Amino acid sequence: MSTPSDDDALADARAQIDELDQRIHALINERAGIALKVAEIKQAAGRTDFYRPEREAQVLERVAARNEGPLSDEAAARIMREIMSACLALEKPMTVAYLGPEGTYTQAAVYKHFGHAVLASPKPAIGDIFRDVEAGNAHFGVVPVENSTEGVVTHTLDQLVGSRLSICGEVALAVHHHLLSHAGELGSIKRVVAHAQSLAQCRNWLDTHLPGVVREAVASNGEAARRVAGDATAAAIAARAASDFYDLPILASNIEDEPNNTTRFLVLGTQQVAASGNDMTSILVSIRNRPGMLYRLLAPAADAGVDLARIESRPSRRQAWDYNFFIDIEGHADDAPVRRVIESIEAEAVMLKILGSYPRSIGRDAE
Amino acid sequence: MSTPSDDDALADARAQIDELDQRIHALINERAGIALKVAEIKQAAGRTDFYRPEREAQVLERVAARNEGPLSDEAAARIMREIMSACLALEKPMTVAYLGPEGTYTQAAVYKHFGHAVLASPKPAIGDIFRDVEAGNAHFGVVPVENSTEGVVTHTLDQLVGSRLSICGEVALAVHHHLLSHAGELGSIKRVVAHAQSLAQCRNWLDTHLPGVVREAVASNGEAARRVAGDATAAAIAARAASDFYDLPILASNIEDEPNNTTRFLVLGTQQVAASGNDMTSILVSIRNRPGMLYRLLAPAADAGVDLARIESRPSRRQAWDYNFFIDIEGHADDAPVRRVIESIEAEAVMLKILGSYPRSIGRDAE
Repeated sequence: MSTPSDDDALADARAQIDELDQRIHALINERAGIALKVAEIKQAAGRTDFYRPEREAQVLERVAARNEGPLSDEAAARIMREIMSACLALEKPMTVAYLGPEGTYTQAAVYKHFGHAVLASPKPAIGDIFRDVEAGNAHFGVVPVENSTEGVVTHTLDQLVGSRLSICGEVALAVHHHLLSHAGELGSIKRVVAHAQSLAQCRNWLDTHLPGVVREAVASNGEAARRVAGDATAAAIAARAASDFYDLPILASNIEDEPNNTTRFLVLGTQQVAASGNDMTSILVSIRNRPGMLYRLLAPAADAGVDLARIESRPSRRQAWDYNFFIDIEGHADDAPVRRVIESIEAEAVMLKILGSYPRSIGRDAE
Repeated sequence: MSTPSDDDALADARAQIDELDQRIHALINERAGIALKVAEIKQAAGRTDFYRPEREAQVLERVAARNEGPLSDEAAARIMREIMSACLALEKPMTVAYLGPEGTYTQAAVYKHFGHAVLASPKPAIGDIFRDVEAGNAHFGVVPVENSTEGVVTHTLDQLVGSRLSICGEVALAVHHHLLSHAGELGSIKRVVAHAQSLAQCRNWLDTHLPGVVREAVASNGEAARRVAGDATAAAIAARAASDFYDLPILASNIEDEPNNTTRFLVLGTQQVAASGNDMTSILVSIRNRPGMLYRLLAPAADAGVDLARIESRPSRRQAWDYNFFIDIEGHADDAPVRRVIESIEAEAVMLKILGSYPRSIGRDAE
């Protein structure tokens, strides 16, 4: 039971919260007023860069840096993201095309990156998103580039080759896999159903805990959950939402071999993004033959102490060349060491295209 | 082009924004600290009412009342909702079960009402949500009660009859209907496809603009959009998202006959909600026979000047009684006039059950 002194303390706390809310509200409107002034100055100068990814990234990094709690860095950043999103919508309402349908991880990535004050427009295919942004129907596009369950990375890379869009940002969402089944215990499971990539991502766990059990690949993890919902001798690998939706108990949680399993998305746009201080540069390189060349290509970066975060090779569609390489370099293309590395690679390559320099994603959330 | 003085003005504005952000951030953390203290007091007193719907409603009403812009009342309320959501998650992480799958209007209603710091758990059927909250697996449930496109209202009402859950809140989302087609002009359209309820909701518009055109009812508006995507002589009635997803041009916007077309959702829980000052009370009444009784039932409210917002009749499943009436009364069951009206109705009825008193929904958004 609450005592009278408890009631007093609660009434007092509520009064303090009300007073804080009033001050927070006034400051947010003050911020929105300044944002409107910024928009006026830019409009008068004929500028169209209302949304500045590097500036937003800096604001959010500062939130994490100065945060003393009790809110987590993620919670504080999420609120600040919504404040920026609402202010930006006053300056310039934005449309963001993304790989639909609604309710997908890509939609979650849009809201994580842009906040909820944008108009998020779902599209059925990755090519549609490129076309929409190129045609000016959407200000930005969001596409998965390393998708742990749908495997669409190659479509995005292939589209980037021929597109005049730049990468303006990246978004990372943490993805966890769970073993869902009515089996009650691991010993009763005769087969495990999931998307091939999810089976691969949980291989060590499956080898250890379900040795010899048949693995069956299907189109998606949602489909897998649907299939095993009526079969107590089968288990699916899927996200928590599928457990809720199909009322399938979670027999084991976070069974992915790589604990920081994330899905990565790219933000596409028409603008070049200035340096934020913590950036990534993606380049596309075509070279004529593979083994010796790749080493020669990478040597300048190693010499300069510039980190290559990621290298992805894709067969080129042009006959004359063997391979396209997608290379992510830590730093901004305007940074002198990065620029020199790019120039060295260019000297060895048949073709080099800078796909974009953009702020690195900070923080991960989602299921 | 920006001039040097523009650049100075922009740098100055950015410095002001940075300083404001710092103050906003500090105040939000201060608020979170007080919320934690509130939680400690409640915990020590053995109280479990960490989430107080009437209190949140009051906070949001105050935001709208004092808002001077430039942010809209809705934008300011959305940010304050996220701040409250993050603070509450510190006190007590909450699970909210809702009618899935992900990406539906009901999910949007969950986030609109609770903010994004809750764990939203999709369920395949309305009965599952009632069971989940009754069993304590979820703290609250959200179900559609007047759904303009899926017509599930009767399931929710029927479930309420036998449940011990209370209605703790309501959420309203604006829903607009658009005519989607590749036809290019209305004259080329030979049939209109949509859910039966959407066809009904756009009847006047269809009678005026597409007289004599065949109307075809299908399971959902999404299904309608899918069907007409490949047929330039057909049109679908659907939400804007379907236009984006199926790349179907919008031939006419907002064609619903009722301009304030909303979908209404109920928040279900186990707690009784205190008065917020702007409340609604839902009751369930069983009476033996209909025509004269209904008038007698409603007379006390009219005499007392108490408004009845809504009356819905449903055939009772119990043989002895003819009908159940779901009646929404403006005000809280603890308000003397409302209490007297309820007592008068109870005197005439075979059975009366108070389904809940809860804060009225404020603001509408969504598509």
